[in-house]
Amino acid sequence: MSPKSKKNRSPVKLKMRHRRFRKKHAAIGSRPGELVKHAIKDCSARLIEFAPGTDEYNNREIAEAAALPELDSDRVRWLDIQGLGDLPTIEAVGKRFAIHPLALADAVNVPQRPKADIYGDQILVVMRMVRLAEDQSVQAEQVTLLIGKGYVVTFQEKPGDILDPLRKRLADSTSRVRNSQSGFLAYAIIDTIVDGYYPVIDAIGDHIESLESRVMNDPSTETLVDLNHTKNLLVDLRRSIGPQREAINSLIREPHQAISDDVRLHLRDVYDHCIQSLDVIEMYREMSTGLVSIYLSAVANRSNDVMKVLTIMASIFIPLTFIAGIYGMNFEHMPELKFRWAYPLVWLAMVTISSGMLAFFWKKGWIGK
Amino acid sequence: MSPKSKKNRSPVKLKMRHRRFRKKHAAIGSRPGELVKHAIKDCSARLIEFAPGTDEYNNREIAEAAALPELDSDRVRWLDIQGLGDLPTIEAVGKRFAIHPLALADAVNVPQRPKADIYGDQILVVMRMVRLAEDQSVQAEQVTLLIGKGYVVTFQEKPGDILDPLRKRLADSTSRVRNSQSGFLAYAIIDTIVDGYYPVIDAIGDHIESLESRVMNDPSTETLVDLNHTKNLLVDLRRSIGPQREAINSLIREPHQAISDDVRLHLRDVYDHCIQSLDVIEMYREMSTGLVSIYLSAVANRSNDVMKVLTIMASIFIPLTFIAGIYGMNFEHMPELKFRWAYPLVWLAMVTISSGMLAFFWKKGWIGK
Amino acid sequence: MSPKSKKNRSPVKLKMRHRRFRKKHAAIGSRPGELVKHAIKDCSARLIEFAPGTDEYNNREIAEAAALPELDSDRVRWLDIQGLGDLPTIEAVGKRFAIHPLALADAVNVPQRPKADIYGDQILVVMRMVRLAEDQSVQAEQVTLLIGKGYVVTFQEKPGDILDPLRKRLADSTSRVRNSQSGFLAYAIIDTIVDGYYPVIDAIGDHIESLESRVMNDPSTETLVDLNHTKNLLVDLRRSIGPQREAINSLIREPHQAISDDVRLHLRDVYDHCIQSLDVIEMYREMSTGLVSIYLSAVANRSNDVMKVLTIMASIFIPLTFIAGIYGMNFEHMPELKFRWAYPLVWLAMVTISSGMLAFFWKKGWIGK
Amino acid sequence: MSPKSKKNRSPVKLKMRHRRFRKKHAAIGSRPGELVKHAIKDCSARLIEFAPGTDEYNNREIAEAAALPELDSDRVRWLDIQGLGDLPTIEAVGKRFAIHPLALADAVNVPQRPKADIYGDQILVVMRMVRLAEDQSVQAEQVTLLIGKGYVVTFQEKPGDILDPLRKRLADSTSRVRNSQSGFLAYAIIDTIVDGYYPVIDAIGDHIESLESRVMNDPSTETLVDLNHTKNLLVDLRRSIGPQREAINSLIREPHQAISDDVRLHLRDVYDHCIQSLDVIEMYREMSTGLVSIYLSAVANRSNDVMKVLTIMASIFIPLTFIAGIYGMNFEHMPELKFRWAYPLVWLAMVTISSGMLAFFWKKGWIGK
Amino acid sequence: MSPKSKKNRSPVKLKMRHRRFRKKHAAIGSRPGELVKHAIKDCSARLIEFAPGTDEYNNREIAEAAALPELDSDRVRWLDIQGLGDLPTIEAVGKRFAIHPLALADAVNVPQRPKADIYGDQILVVMRMVRLAEDQSVQAEQVTLLIGKGYVVTFQEKPGDILDPLRKRLADSTSRVRNSQSGFLAYAIIDTIVDGYYPVIDAIGDHIESLESRVMNDPSTETLVDLNHTKNLLVDLRRSIGPQREAINSLIREPHQAISDDVRLHLRDVYDHCIQSLDVIEMYREMSTGLVSIYLSAVANRSNDVMKVLTIMASIFIPLTFIAGIYGMNFEHMPELKFRWAYPLVWLAMVTISSGMLAFFWKKGWIGK
Repeated sequence: MSPKSKKNRSPVKLKMRHRRFRKKHAAIGSRPGELVKHAIKDCSARLIEFAPGTDEYNNREIAEAAALPELDSDRVRWLDIQGLGDLPTIEAVGKRFAIHPLALADAVNVPQRPKADIYGDQILVVMRMVRLAEDQSVQAEQVTLLIGKGYVVTFQEKPGDILDPLRKRLADSTSRVRNSQSGFLAYAIIDTIVDGYYPVIDAIGDHIESLESRVMNDPSTETLVDLNHTKNLLVDLRRSIGPQREAINSLIREPHQAISDDVRLHLRDVYDHCIQSLDVIEMYREMSTGLVSIYLSAVANRSNDVMKVLTIMASIFIPLTFIAGIYGMNFEHMPELKFRWAYPLVWLAMVTISSGMLAFFWKKGWIGK
Repeated sequence: MSPKSKKNRSPVKLKMRHRRFRKKHAAIGSRPGELVKHAIKDCSARLIEFAPGTDEYNNREIAEAAALPELDSDRVRWLDIQGLGDLPTIEAVGKRFAIHPLALADAVNVPQRPKADIYGDQILVVMRMVRLAEDQSVQAEQVTLLIGKGYVVTFQEKPGDILDPLRKRLADSTSRVRNSQSGFLAYAIIDTIVDGYYPVIDAIGDHIESLESRVMNDPSTETLVDLNHTKNLLVDLRRSIGPQREAINSLIREPHQAISDDVRLHLRDVYDHCIQSLDVIEMYREMSTGLVSIYLSAVANRSNDVMKVLTIMASIFIPLTFIAGIYGMNFEHMPELKFRWAYPLVWLAMVTISSGMLAFFWKKGWIGK
Repeated sequence: MSPKSKKNRSPVKLKMRHRRFRKKHAAIGSRPGELVKHAIKDCSARLIEFAPGTDEYNNREIAEAAALPELDSDRVRWLDIQGLGDLPTIEAVGKRFAIHPLALADAVNVPQRPKADIYGDQILVVMRMVRLAEDQSVQAEQVTLLIGKGYVVTFQEKPGDILDPLRKRLADSTSRVRNSQSGFLAYAIIDTIVDGYYPVIDAIGDHIESLESRVMNDPSTETLVDLNHTKNLLVDLRRSIGPQREAINSLIREPHQAISDDVRLHLRDVYDHCIQSLDVIEMYREMSTGLVSIYLSAVANRSNDVMKVLTIMASIFIPLTFIAGIYGMNFEHMPELKFRWAYPLVWLAMVTISSGMLAFFWKKGWIGK
Repeated sequence: MSPKSKKNRSPVKLKMRHRRFRKKHAAIGSRPGELVKHAIKDCSARLIEFAPGTDEYNNREIAEAAALPELDSDRVRWLDIQGLGDLPTIEAVGKRFAIHPLALADAVNVPQRPKADIYGDQILVVMRMVRLAEDQSVQAEQVTLLIGKGYVVTFQEKPGDILDPLRKRLADSTSRVRNSQSGFLAYAIIDTIVDGYYPVIDAIGDHIESLESRVMNDPSTETLVDLNHTKNLLVDLRRSIGPQREAINSLIREPHQAISDDVRLHLRDVYDHCIQSLDVIEMYREMSTGLVSIYLSAVANRSNDVMKVLTIMASIFIPLTFIAGIYGMNFEHMPELKFRWAYPLVWLAMVTISSGMLAFFWKKGWIGK
Repeated sequence: MSPKSKKNRSPVKLKMRHRRFRKKHAAIGSRPGELVKHAIKDCSARLIEFAPGTDEYNNREIAEAAALPELDSDRVRWLDIQGLGDLPTIEAVGKRFAIHPLALADAVNVPQRPKADIYGDQILVVMRMVRLAEDQSVQAEQVTLLIGKGYVVTFQEKPGDILDPLRKRLADSTSRVRNSQSGFLAYAIIDTIVDGYYPVIDAIGDHIESLESRVMNDPSTETLVDLNHTKNLLVDLRRSIGPQREAINSLIREPHQAISDDVRLHLRDVYDHCIQSLDVIEMYREMSTGLVSIYLSAVANRSNDVMKVLTIMASIFIPLTFIAGIYGMNFEHMPELKFRWAYPLVWLAMVTISSGMLAFFWKKGWIGK
């Protein structure tokens, strides 16, 4: 590739984490609810505890299962597990919060399809969180919410998330989320995760715009591969958001004690954001498809350029060479050979012919553009 | 590009405003209903006030929040905010009209997806208004309607709109909209916005027709890029009108005090217009897709033309040059060289061969077309 | 283009009337129900009046609004307006038959999307009538039916229609339509309009079959443009029939006094014809899409033929010319030049080489096909 | 085309009967229920009569309308009309079995879309029967069933069908169909018709497999046309089976005296077969679409091969010819010309250059494959 | 093909069993419920019998029909038939378990479309089991479950399955499936079959990734055929899983005594897995479609490379040969020929010209990349 095309390349590395669709499934035929062992052993648990309408607020790391809170209905608790590597802890959480084994398996055996399921008085919501990492790659991970009366438990696939602004709002005793029940907290988490799609989609939009000039100026197969990866990324995002929209919709429609009417109104807003994201993704996909045809056109035009050069060179010089060949013949009786002005006249003929050819090509628009 | 192709180019610049799908979203994790600050600070408010069935009519600029009207049920009021840059004013309006924070956020954090939501005794309708600017570019902006008993509040993204004919009808004391309640006024606004799609779609239709001759005569990558932009514009329009249709449909179906049966009947008409616009857009999209194949065919035919010229030139002169080469050899024993009529005979042979080639190409239809 | 391809061209000119999707919409923001002024001022009104079960039958031109009939329930009346240019007459008709302003606007502001709407005791049915004109172009126009108790009013966009056979049946006092109520008359009109699609679709089928041989034998861009126009025509027809099917379906499903159970049974038949037409149109569209790939293949094969000629000519003569060049060199020490049989031997070598090349190409299947 | 490609060609001629989508519709505007006259006058009627649970069985040709049976409820009768050319007989049958005129028109004015309609105590089922003719072409015809209490009347478009195995089972007094009511007989006919699609679909599957090797080895336009015809055939079959599935589904869902619960259970089986056929057809269609891209790839590779030969020949000999040209120049002062070993050295240089080029092409993988 | 491309080829042979869509259907017109004879006569029956909540457990081969168990409600029995070749045994099983003839036919006349049907107090579930054979080919077979009170009968098309882990769990007296009723056993079988899709889909994912590098480096038609086969395999898998999802959904929705609420909850989990598999399959299909365009781009670029070599060689040497030709002419009056430095000057001109051409091509980016 030429150095020029390298400069055109956007520095954004838009790649989902490798092996993104490899499910960490339990062995075939294993018992239902069996939890998969993760390679990475990281696992931290953090509890935010507050009483709505009061100043009571507590944010602490849970080091061992024994430190898990007893459940009482006065406070709202958010237990946030980051990393799924420590099965005993997770099982202890499952026991303390009386989580159904299948729900716990959905949290651990990632990735699951985003969904909202009701397990008695708990709601299980499987979400997919995406963010741009510092190297501009797209990181995706599953966030599982368990919403009960007075608590929300979240299981994150990996350490690190985009929920810090929410945590800051929780620390502010005047914020609305601090003065609401667990349903509103769950809404706030879901809302933040869904809003997190916008910067990623914007980055893809920038990348597609940069691709438009690249497919025209540097129609290499590499460019097309980049375009294809972008399309695959869009397919992947759509595959994440689509079921998320359905999940939020079922939260809105199905009555459950943990979701108040006010929370439902706010969820409708999140639902709109999901649909809007899907619209934009769909639009980008159509734009990418259009870029493929521009790419193929650029390739064809490039071939055409190569062929034009060949045709012009050959069409001009082949007749001239023929004329030179004529007077290179060794016949004894070639009167022109002795004619005094023959040589200049031949040159004149050659110049005339090549000028004619050049005029023909210029009229065709092949040269002089 | 040749000058000829430049003349073919339609002067219509069909481009949606740049960055059209970049949502001015609040920071991730911000509290629900938080309003986004706009870069452009323009914000004007105009109030049209009238009492149906009477001559009472008032049209005035609202300079400060204090001038906002008290609500009473005898009059119909249309408060029109143009430009979303002045958050304090907008918040004052929100307070006076008791607008739900999420509804206000939908009006300010543009673009939202077109929709109709019910907030208690108010209806929020998000519309998308398009028009051809003077430079023939397509301008799109969000218009948010809040319909209540006795008033309609509209929030426009930018100054300038296509509602002037409606304002003229409002000034006419005999017009129907002047003698009806706020629901009919809302219908009239929605109807005008939907009708505003027709001239834009017509302009795109003209542009596609001009593209048809361009793809045949000037199949440059630039032409294809133009075609693609037109397709993207159609996708964008469809993305605006599709949800608008659903929004109007939900206004028709869901009972609400602000929408009388008569207004419903008129909304059915608007609904039909939405569907018709979508039909035409869909048809244009299929035509654009057809143009891509015509374009690729024109490119292939152009390559073919280049190759034909090369083939004809090479096929005619390469054998002749070979013959000349033969008699340029320096063998001592080449009896022809001494033969008196050899040279004219060689010329005869050459003319015969090239005539044969020309006849062959003519029969193939490659020349003499 | 070669003369041969011209003969292949079907004489059928399959083009919808120009500007077919340009709606004669009222100015943006005009009042609801405002009627658009048409450029063509033609407007004729004909009344067919009969009493079912009796010999009473009357068919007369209505020259002025005053001649419009009083409505009574004993007779069935069909008032047929052809041409929408005379707004006063149309408004008089609207007044006499108490037509809702929006319904009248749907009749005049053509084209509307085909639909069936209920306005009190009247049914508005918007249909789209197509026919092959004498020059084999496809003419399309809107026919609007207003069905009430004892009358059917039809508004046709332009003079001339395909309803004459129905008029003949009405003149026959033993025919079923003559002895039935207005609902059956409306069914008969709708049925005739829907049956009118068959000859048009058949003509398109003939055209597509003729295109199949053309894309193979004459893959010019012109042929592709013709193919594309045919596809656009199919899209247009589908866009007409699809909503018509829905309209007829809603007539069948929704109870209304003007539609008896027997008429419903007959409408089911029309409904089936609509679906069948859509099926055939869909099939033709898939066939057209297939033809595009055949076309592209024919173009590629033609390029291949050009390149084969070039390759064969060049591959045979370039080596021979090289050999001739060798013995045209002027070295003093070239023993072959003095050898007596050198010249014939060189010829032998050349014949051998070119025979070898020819054999190679023949084995490849490039020549001697 | 080369003889080799001819051998690859499958001997199966997969073509639907010509003019397959040309409906024998009555003239536009003709009265409802008007029967179309068929060109072919063949028409035979055969009656199979039996009493379930007894040995009574009668199979006879009906030569004239007078021989049509009186209806009584003890026996089950199957009246099978083959050929629709004899309208008086068909009208007599319609009269005797009290068939609704629209139902009779559906039986005669073929092809109708497959469907199931209820006319009072009769059910009309329109089916489409396909079979491979002896010349391996696909024959399609409409079979219309009229199911009433104690009888089934079938109208076949043409003589000859695939129902003989069923007739054999009817002759066997122990078979289930012989001992059941008319609903089961109707099921047996429908089941046989649906099962008749399997051999046709299998033949198409064989043909597509044979096409896979042909598109790779003989990418002629003829092959693509064959592929397209196969796709069209699949579209046509889908168009037949799709509505048939809906028809059978409506038979299963809608209660009717002629269809017992047991028959319904059996129809569910037929319904499954319809869906399975549609699945396979859809799969074949996707395979065909894939073959088009293989075809285009094969065409491109073939062009590439042609161009490689040209490039190799030209690249090797053009430089050599240039060298020969150099020493063919007639300058007086060219010291090399007098050098003793010049001529062999030039040969050495030429061999070196051409070896270099060959090595270059070999490294590129263009030769020596 | 070059040896290098062979190494790139993934060793995974991804092919469904040959003739995968050839249904072993009974002869057309045969009686309903007629069982098809299979060519392979293998047929083994194994009974696992246990009493939930006790240690009672029995696993034995059933050699003859007489050894089939009497049904009683205390125990749960799983009768597993592998191979459908022995019709008498199967009919004996059908008799003992009172299986409806149509249900038994669905088990034997494979392949049926996956489905769940209720036959009185039994449920028939048709599943499709896939697995990677040792040679990495994809094996697919039908597994039919008959679920009744106290027993599950499974019919497998061929010996060998993926259910061994489940059998191990059954042998463990503490496992949940050992202590539950037949509904849970059926769930466990279905769950294991659905989980068996993951490794197959993963293998296809690996294959598609290996194909991405192959289409770029070795765009041979063979590679495209491999890509197409992979797409067909995905279509086939989707065709299996899609109806399976519907079948499981109908098990969840429709009340039946054999399916307890707890089993329903677990089936919901299986349902999610089906949807997830379909999502991944759909994503792989889109990726494959993207690879086709990369492939075509690679082919076009390869052609372009060939043409560039030709153009460069021809453009450089044709002008030089022309110059050599000029001075090979035999005119008497060519003053240059006598000029002392003519020959070196000509060489200089030639070097200049070819350097110019090389610079031109280098600037175009055709060489020196």
